[in-house]
Amino acid sequence: MSDWKTRPRVVIVGGGFGGLYCARALAREPVRITLVDRKNHHTFQPLLYQVATAALSPGDIASPIRSILRRFVNVEVLLGEVVGFELDQRRVLLRDGGRLEYDYLVVAAGAQHSYFGHGEWESLAPGLKTIEDALEIRRRVLLAYEMAERQAALGKDPGPLNFVIVGGGPTGVELAGAIAEIATRTLAKDFRLIQTKRSRVLLLEAGPRVLPTYPEDLSRKAEKQLRELGVEVRTRALVTGVNQDQIRVGDEVIPATVTVWAAGVAASGLGRLLSDHTDAAGRIPVGSDCSLPRHPEVFVIGDLALFKDEHGKPLPGVAQVAIQQGRAVAKNIGREFKGQPRQPFRYKDLGSLATIGRAAAVADIFGIHLSGLIAWVVWLFIHILWLIGFRNRLLVMVNWTWAYFASQHGPRLITEREW
Amino acid sequence: MSDWKTRPRVVIVGGGFGGLYCARALAREPVRITLVDRKNHHTFQPLLYQVATAALSPGDIASPIRSILRRFVNVEVLLGEVVGFELDQRRVLLRDGGRLEYDYLVVAAGAQHSYFGHGEWESLAPGLKTIEDALEIRRRVLLAYEMAERQAALGKDPGPLNFVIVGGGPTGVELAGAIAEIATRTLAKDFRLIQTKRSRVLLLEAGPRVLPTYPEDLSRKAEKQLRELGVEVRTRALVTGVNQDQIRVGDEVIPATVTVWAAGVAASGLGRLLSDHTDAAGRIPVGSDCSLPRHPEVFVIGDLALFKDEHGKPLPGVAQVAIQQGRAVAKNIGREFKGQPRQPFRYKDLGSLATIGRAAAVADIFGIHLSGLIAWVVWLFIHILWLIGFRNRLLVMVNWTWAYFASQHGPRLITEREW
Repeated sequence: MSDWKTRPRVVIVGGGFGGLYCARALAREPVRITLVDRKNHHTFQPLLYQVATAALSPGDIASPIRSILRRFVNVEVLLGEVVGFELDQRRVLLRDGGRLEYDYLVVAAGAQHSYFGHGEWESLAPGLKTIEDALEIRRRVLLAYEMAERQAALGKDPGPLNFVIVGGGPTGVELAGAIAEIATRTLAKDFRLIQTKRSRVLLLEAGPRVLPTYPEDLSRKAEKQLRELGVEVRTRALVTGVNQDQIRVGDEVIPATVTVWAAGVAASGLGRLLSDHTDAAGRIPVGSDCSLPRHPEVFVIGDLALFKDEHGKPLPGVAQVAIQQGRAVAKNIGREFKGQPRQPFRYKDLGSLATIGRAAAVADIFGIHLSGLIAWVVWLFIHILWLIGFRNRLLVMVNWTWAYFASQHGPRLITEREW
Repeated sequence: MSDWKTRPRVVIVGGGFGGLYCARALAREPVRITLVDRKNHHTFQPLLYQVATAALSPGDIASPIRSILRRFVNVEVLLGEVVGFELDQRRVLLRDGGRLEYDYLVVAAGAQHSYFGHGEWESLAPGLKTIEDALEIRRRVLLAYEMAERQAALGKDPGPLNFVIVGGGPTGVELAGAIAEIATRTLAKDFRLIQTKRSRVLLLEAGPRVLPTYPEDLSRKAEKQLRELGVEVRTRALVTGVNQDQIRVGDEVIPATVTVWAAGVAASGLGRLLSDHTDAAGRIPVGSDCSLPRHPEVFVIGDLALFKDEHGKPLPGVAQVAIQQGRAVAKNIGREFKGQPRQPFRYKDLGSLATIGRAAAVADIFGIHLSGLIAWVVWLFIHILWLIGFRNRLLVMVNWTWAYFASQHGPRLITEREW
């Protein structure tokens, strides 16, 4: 590769779905790629709730980015934090003073939790975006049971065991179902003095129904399946306050042993470093080819991009959008080398899937609405096939099958702190 | 169980090998058992170095204590920190003011790292006793490579990649071998710009040979196998100083990107709360039945006990001693209920095993000395059989086999901090 140094250089910021699929698609093109991420690993976010509820280990759903991309010789992976952009000089600035020069820049920095202006709620009600988040939620849930058992052993009142999940989107629904299953099945035999089945799991949704972006009939079915698992679902319940051991919904105060935040996301803070024109959620409006206005060499994809479809409706912040945009951008960069014009991005909606518990899920696939066991089998099948670049796809399947059918969840470890 | 409340109460402090085997053996006796530990999980310490070197996940080698003991109905497990003893009132004091009353007390609180009076070295050179320790070492090792790659990508000198392991006992030998394998095999293809094979792995032992408690011929063979893996072994090398990026051996200064401490252990600080007569390593001298002098109802076992064999030689701090003592104490408690006298404890030495790398190990079993592949197969077989109470014994085996034969280590995740 004598042309190595002279190849156009593509810098990709972010190793989530968008960045990863973009890098893979670009690997065939005559470019030199550098992918930068703050973490050394890609996290398979659709299964993060399973780490939070101790069904899977972090290593089952996360893999080093440089391993995933190892076979693509024109891709370099860098652990580093991006702190700025010099768009006119075509440079990316790293935290420790390093600079990366580019000919094309793809920013796929994703999203983070949003507490709607209440940043102080974050430590009281952690969200679920990273492996660290998942381990923190796991720690709090398991610790709640341990503390109650200890109180009982010392002859004291163990108090309530209330798990409150704020937000009825897919993450909230999946977490609520999984926590209810832990309480009724997995932990029931482990504790001697407390009745784990008496724990309450509350799912609070501010809008009129859970899974608000799904078809209405599936929302109803999801709610029914959640109730069958013992989850109390409350819609039109807007959280107005979060404390150490209670939350406030309107004027009502609800005791909350553990609160988890699944209510809102905001685009990565990198958005504001790239553009002055972000929307309320911090997203950057992009053109039909996902490029930044006046900077055709800069692309923004995934949760950080505000891309409006042909009806003027913004695309949702889901993995499929990021993946398809990553591939489309790679293709357009490749077309430029052949002197071909760019093609506008078109999103193909492959459907929506949310799992609720063991053998319970809802699915909207090519307009077909499924629920219950069949939806769950579809969900399982798709997610296993989809675990990209993971050496342990088979192991995860074995772990999973075990966890689901043996009612025996796996790595219930409380680590990180000695409390 | 109408006699439940009136049953003699046994409190066991510590869920390591000693406490766990004691609880299991006592489960057959007419007692009520409470096992207290600061952690919710038992850690299978013989394989901790595999978590540190990213071959296994924490969940593979740790399991919640209450799951392991679930089927024993007379055992309660409590998450709690012991902060004191009132021996005359037969009470154990917990951190948050709780008290546990007992008829028999078994203290199996284990050991911690010892920096020989240099507590300030601890953060510079972490040891390997807990899951958290293992993840911290993993983080430092992987981060060292990431930083070197980043320096190279920014056109700077990546600097040396020196991994220094202080202490040539089994833990040091196993860590040195595993880190050398990571460098030469696992990571070699993952990095584009740095030569991971150029990393140096130094094993420093203050005494005249590695594995000082093993027969001399096995020490020699272990050293030879380490050298074949690329480890530089230095004996009679007493560390006199530890800094951020270097260590001092006598007058010599050695650059050290990552330093790991495997040189010394001291008994748990709980020893001093139990007795004024601890030895230099903080261990408590116990009688022939492992009981505390003047307190026949209190037993101290495992690494915290100073038990002298018939030649007056203290038993080593290894898992087998703790396991056998735990069982012996349980048996003696049971004998009291039958009006039988206690029997003195006798240690049966089943031999020693240390693994050095893929298909390399040394073993001393019933006086037979083995090395190389055969010793490694024995090591593998024994450790797999020994993984008690782990649902995933089979999964660990699959993980392992994969890691060893595919040269593809597993969960190389850097988590916990965003650096």
